[in-house]
Amino acid sequence: MVYLDNAATSYPKPEKVYDAVLDHMKNFGANPGRSGHQLALQAGRGIFKTRELIAKLFNIENPMQVVFTCNATDSLNLAIKGVLKEGDHVITSSMEHNSVLRPIKSLESKGIENTIIQCDCEGFINTKDIKNAIKSNTKMIALTHGSNVTGTIMPIKEVGKIAKEANVLFLVDGAQTGGIYDIDVNEMNIDLLALPGHKGLMGPQGTGFLYIRENLNVMHFKEGGTGSKSEELTQPQMMPDRYESGTANAPGISGLGAGIEFILKEGLEKIRNHEKELTQYFIDELKKIEPVKIYGPKDAEKQGAVVSINIGSEDSSEIAYILDSAFNIAVRSGLHCAPLAHKTIGSFEQGTVRFGIGYFNTKEDIDKAIVAIKEICSEI
Amino acid sequence: MVYLDNAATSYPKPEKVYDAVLDHMKNFGANPGRSGHQLALQAGRGIFKTRELIAKLFNIENPMQVVFTCNATDSLNLAIKGVLKEGDHVITSSMEHNSVLRPIKSLESKGIENTIIQCDCEGFINTKDIKNAIKSNTKMIALTHGSNVTGTIMPIKEVGKIAKEANVLFLVDGAQTGGIYDIDVNEMNIDLLALPGHKGLMGPQGTGFLYIRENLNVMHFKEGGTGSKSEELTQPQMMPDRYESGTANAPGISGLGAGIEFILKEGLEKIRNHEKELTQYFIDELKKIEPVKIYGPKDAEKQGAVVSINIGSEDSSEIAYILDSAFNIAVRSGLHCAPLAHKTIGSFEQGTVRFGIGYFNTKEDIDKAIVAIKEICSEI
Repeated sequence: MVYLDNAATSYPKPEKVYDAVLDHMKNFGANPGRSGHQLALQAGRGIFKTRELIAKLFNIENPMQVVFTCNATDSLNLAIKGVLKEGDHVITSSMEHNSVLRPIKSLESKGIENTIIQCDCEGFINTKDIKNAIKSNTKMIALTHGSNVTGTIMPIKEVGKIAKEANVLFLVDGAQTGGIYDIDVNEMNIDLLALPGHKGLMGPQGTGFLYIRENLNVMHFKEGGTGSKSEELTQPQMMPDRYESGTANAPGISGLGAGIEFILKEGLEKIRNHEKELTQYFIDELKKIEPVKIYGPKDAEKQGAVVSINIGSEDSSEIAYILDSAFNIAVRSGLHCAPLAHKTIGSFEQGTVRFGIGYFNTKEDIDKAIVAIKEICSEI
Repeated sequence: MVYLDNAATSYPKPEKVYDAVLDHMKNFGANPGRSGHQLALQAGRGIFKTRELIAKLFNIENPMQVVFTCNATDSLNLAIKGVLKEGDHVITSSMEHNSVLRPIKSLESKGIENTIIQCDCEGFINTKDIKNAIKSNTKMIALTHGSNVTGTIMPIKEVGKIAKEANVLFLVDGAQTGGIYDIDVNEMNIDLLALPGHKGLMGPQGTGFLYIRENLNVMHFKEGGTGSKSEELTQPQMMPDRYESGTANAPGISGLGAGIEFILKEGLEKIRNHEKELTQYFIDELKKIEPVKIYGPKDAEKQGAVVSINIGSEDSSEIAYILDSAFNIAVRSGLHCAPLAHKTIGSFEQGTVRFGIGYFNTKEDIDKAIVAIKEICSEI
């Protein structure tokens, strides 16, 4: 199996991630942050270690501002709904995932306005459009760092500057870029950073986090046992307990820590360069195949390791099915939970065949994909 | 280490649970329900299998009514906040965990009334009190099946009947009983059943579920990618997608499936009888130790495998610390996230030392705990 669906979930994981999950489950699978015995403390330390590693990777000063969630969708809902109130206005882009668009659209019924900036056909946003969309009641700009359909990298540093100057909160969806691209919450003026653990960060599914800038009051939307201030019937306000009710996915978080340690050891640049190289090679080879239409920038300097294509007018899911069944190549087809992105790039009806390249992919994997695509094209 | 903190998290897990998590992560760690390739389908099947196993264990007709969550707190928040609206009234008990009490108290500000039925000093509820508390605007009764402080088993079948007769929804928190006691959502008229995966169900942390009775409209409170109806900017209404946005903890859910398979193979009765036996033995031995005060029913027929004690007026966390550091026995001290339960049984100031007995505990474990408690008592 050639796995080219890393934009959905990175696979495989570094061996140490499996080891960390298993070690945690087998050797200290107790309840972190609740009881005070050795196993519970060790479980709690596993969680805190990962919090610190996340802080290190994204230049977050205080690890307690890192809130663990169960996935990026969870993080994004918390950020969007925890901040926006009736009368507020939020700016986002047409390249967003449904985990940003659906919460924002759902808030319309609560009197929260939105502006969805139309991106160009390669998925790029014009920062002037963002600037122009800012109104007196604009509370937040919510932007993906990299499109999950075309890989298009958004100018988040520039947008962060715009947000700061306008005194508007900046929420970044780093689902496609965290663990591969540099994200510095301070330098980029990011107030809220949402990430899954199971993509670029190489952690297990069932993990994610939201970074919340200090002194930013985000309304929690779950209450429960936190192991702190148990005598009170109101949710404690301390970080990160306020947002972490109930038992955490502690083995998963330990695994995520091992994933981040792997990334820090390899170095972001090495990871990024490897993915860039494969992406550009893939694009260059695809360009030579007549009926293949490539979406997005077609330039690995301007996009992450995500390449969306179509073959003529063939149904994208049909092509993905052939790649899987006849060539043992795993990709994803359809709309990838980002309908407006497909309207933006002109593939709403057809969807796209998406190749998500990961750090563990090799040139041979790309060659196999190219051979398969050529063969499919020759038989159409 | 003698682990007697199973009321927080069951530990260890059956070997097959570790195997299932690792097998899932290593061999089909793709994104379930999103892409259509073999690995993704296999991951999806792993999730569906667990859904079916849960349905089987709790006599749920349609597995699609089982919604995966990240823990019981998540499930309880969804059930409580998804159902109750301004003007509604909810009945609960003084023995509830903060994962029930805190959400219910938070809803007061939204015009949702509550009645907290005072239980007796052993934690029992008088069903007449529930009946009497029902008003014309009562929408829900939310009740734990077993107290996490005293183990007291609540008469959920009787309460289910009361709820049905009054046309009131019945939410059961099965955190301490699921996987040990019989819970039949049909026979017991349970409309909503919230459970963690990591306690009696023997699954990994980071898993849980909410059963929602068919045709019951529970408002979701997260939107995002569901891998279904991706062309729409509104959340799909189909079950269980409506409540399962974002990537699930698929390896964890596979592990949970293995836990439930273990339970089904052993049989609930065997599990329950083993825990009952140890609990009664522990209680009987504790009764012989002069300065030990035992809370709750002191009768394994009327309580789960949870025994809360204090030694004279000693601080409960001090005792737990000694058990851990001098005797290598893991227990939990304090309020166990259930403050009103402690007010009910008279231990709000002192907290309790809680012994959570699990299926993998042995008579030898209990003997070690007894020896340790005797020794501590003799030195005070």
